Amino acid sequence: MSILVVGSVALDAIETPFQKADRVLGGAASFFATAASLYDEVNMVAIVGSDFPREHLEFWQRHHIDLSGLQIQEGKTFSWGGRYHLDMNHRDTLYTELGVYADFHPVVPETYRQSPLLFLANIQPSLQLEVLEQAPNARLTVLDTMELWITAARQELTEIIKRVDVLLMSEEEVRQYTEQASILAGARQLLDMGLKYLVVKLGSYGALLFGADATYFSAPAYPLEEVIDPTGAGDAFAGGLLGYLSTVEPGSNGAYSAEDMKRAVVHGNIIGSFACSDFSINGLRELSIADIKQRYNELVTYSHFDPHWNVR
Amino acid sequence: MSILVVGSVALDAIETPFQKADRVLGGAASFFATAASLYDEVNMVAIVGSDFPREHLEFWQRHHIDLSGLQIQEGKTFSWGGRYHLDMNHRDTLYTELGVYADFHPVVPETYRQSPLLFLANIQPSLQLEVLEQAPNARLTVLDTMELWITAARQELTEIIKRVDVLLMSEEEVRQYTEQASILAGARQLLDMGLKYLVVKLGSYGALLFGADATYFSAPAYPLEEVIDPTGAGDAFAGGLLGYLSTVEPGSNGAYSAEDMKRAVVHGNIIGSFACSDFSINGLRELSIADIKQRYNELVTYSHFDPHWNVR
Repeated sequence: MSILVVGSVALDAIETPFQKADRVLGGAASFFATAASLYDEVNMVAIVGSDFPREHLEFWQRHHIDLSGLQIQEGKTFSWGGRYHLDMNHRDTLYTELGVYADFHPVVPETYRQSPLLFLANIQPSLQLEVLEQAPNARLTVLDTMELWITAARQELTEIIKRVDVLLMSEEEVRQYTEQASILAGARQLLDMGLKYLVVKLGSYGALLFGADATYFSAPAYPLEEVIDPTGAGDAFAGGLLGYLSTVEPGSNGAYSAEDMKRAVVHGNIIGSFACSDFSINGLRELSIADIKQRYNELVTYSHFDPHWNVR
Repeated sequence: MSILVVGSVALDAIETPFQKADRVLGGAASFFATAASLYDEVNMVAIVGSDFPREHLEFWQRHHIDLSGLQIQEGKTFSWGGRYHLDMNHRDTLYTELGVYADFHPVVPETYRQSPLLFLANIQPSLQLEVLEQAPNARLTVLDTMELWITAARQELTEIIKRVDVLLMSEEEVRQYTEQASILAGARQLLDMGLKYLVVKLGSYGALLFGADATYFSAPAYPLEEVIDPTGAGDAFAGGLLGYLSTVEPGSNGAYSAEDMKRAVVHGNIIGSFACSDFSINGLRELSIADIKQRYNELVTYSHFDPHWNVR
């Protein structure tokens, strides 16, 4: 199978309270594709400038990431600068330079249109819609978004939520979009828009899965002693989720079961944890399925408990 | 068996963004004892004034809570007023009237001294030490504390942490006491003081269990659509934890196993969730073991996932 992603590729400048990194590979599509390529082939739709280092392209090609949908255009690659606070859960944007991204219109190559899995990373909802219309045959469509679009493009965001299968949102984004204080009430409101599943990302507390079939699942976070750089953790989470699903045979109705989705969310947390352990995509570069399996087994031990008990 | 608790009994004035309640039963010992009495007999050491409503004493007596350690003294019962913010995770203290609590010195009746389980609720560490010395035979000693004592009585708190088996702290309290940004590093520092177990309460995200034997366990929160009043949830959590342990036969070395402790933390989360569903102890008054069992079974479904997976 293969996984189609559209999103940003960037050169980031990151400052944490402890370290700095300049012009490192960033962007949602970069993290997602690198993560998903641990499991399966990835088709990338994105744009970079003529300044984009060739080494990143070569790395991706070695990792079975097809770049025929990557536009390389005269000019500067999208660049983002951010500074993290002491708790690493909050950050300030220092600058955003759109570069060639300013005029980006995604074009899905003919060879990508049979990808059964589609991930719409957190770019403008209008661009996400353009991609959705160019890939009408995807078996599973997964949407990510960000605070900016909830306020700046609410109507387009609403339109696309109604047309996808799975939505990923942080807890704050659920509250902001639904205007519900209760995550359970907010989740119900979002599922009522036609989603099959909603995944609520809780950062260092793990993630919650809500299903239209009333599935509820709380996935434990993988405990990290130290977070080096949380940039891209949410995109890597999506890469683990869709990467794992690409290895699963869906049911005869073409749908993934709740148990498939639970495992997929656990994979998301695991890959997100690896992404936090270094700058840029470096925490994902050398991973093997055996590394993922080890954290999966640990998470089973860390979260399962005796399903039976009796009071004397 | 029986469970010995020392802590505050109060008459609270609570304001949430949606409702108010005045002079309702509060205090850590009240929540703990009511919660633990769902499982076993409870012995209470505390103090109230002559204004304390008789109905509360009668309720506790009907629920097998022994009150021979409850001092009733001429004067006013300890009273606390608090107002919750919109997110219900933060609150301001409006007033604290110590009343008869100002001169409280706990006295553990002779008949209580064989209680195998001891809970030291979040009163002054010096008073907790007085109780620990009057109950030297407890098989398991569990300590709770609060931010105030970390700053105002750090030395006494340190002394008592070194002498108990289990410590309960919120995530913020772990950071504050250990001055570690990483909860894992903070937990290790606390375990190195001689604890058998540390339980880190994460509020609506559940709880973490750390063991000196390297046990790590992430217990899911019971998902609540609506929180009416979170006051006492931490004390009710402790009541569920110790209440459940009182029904378990410890190993031949007199110690509870990591599996016992995991189940106990799950019980803590369940009882804490019931406490949040109404003002005062009202969410706990009419509970049965069947109610607890139902939420336990739900939490198994909500948090367990397939321990095996294979990549194609």
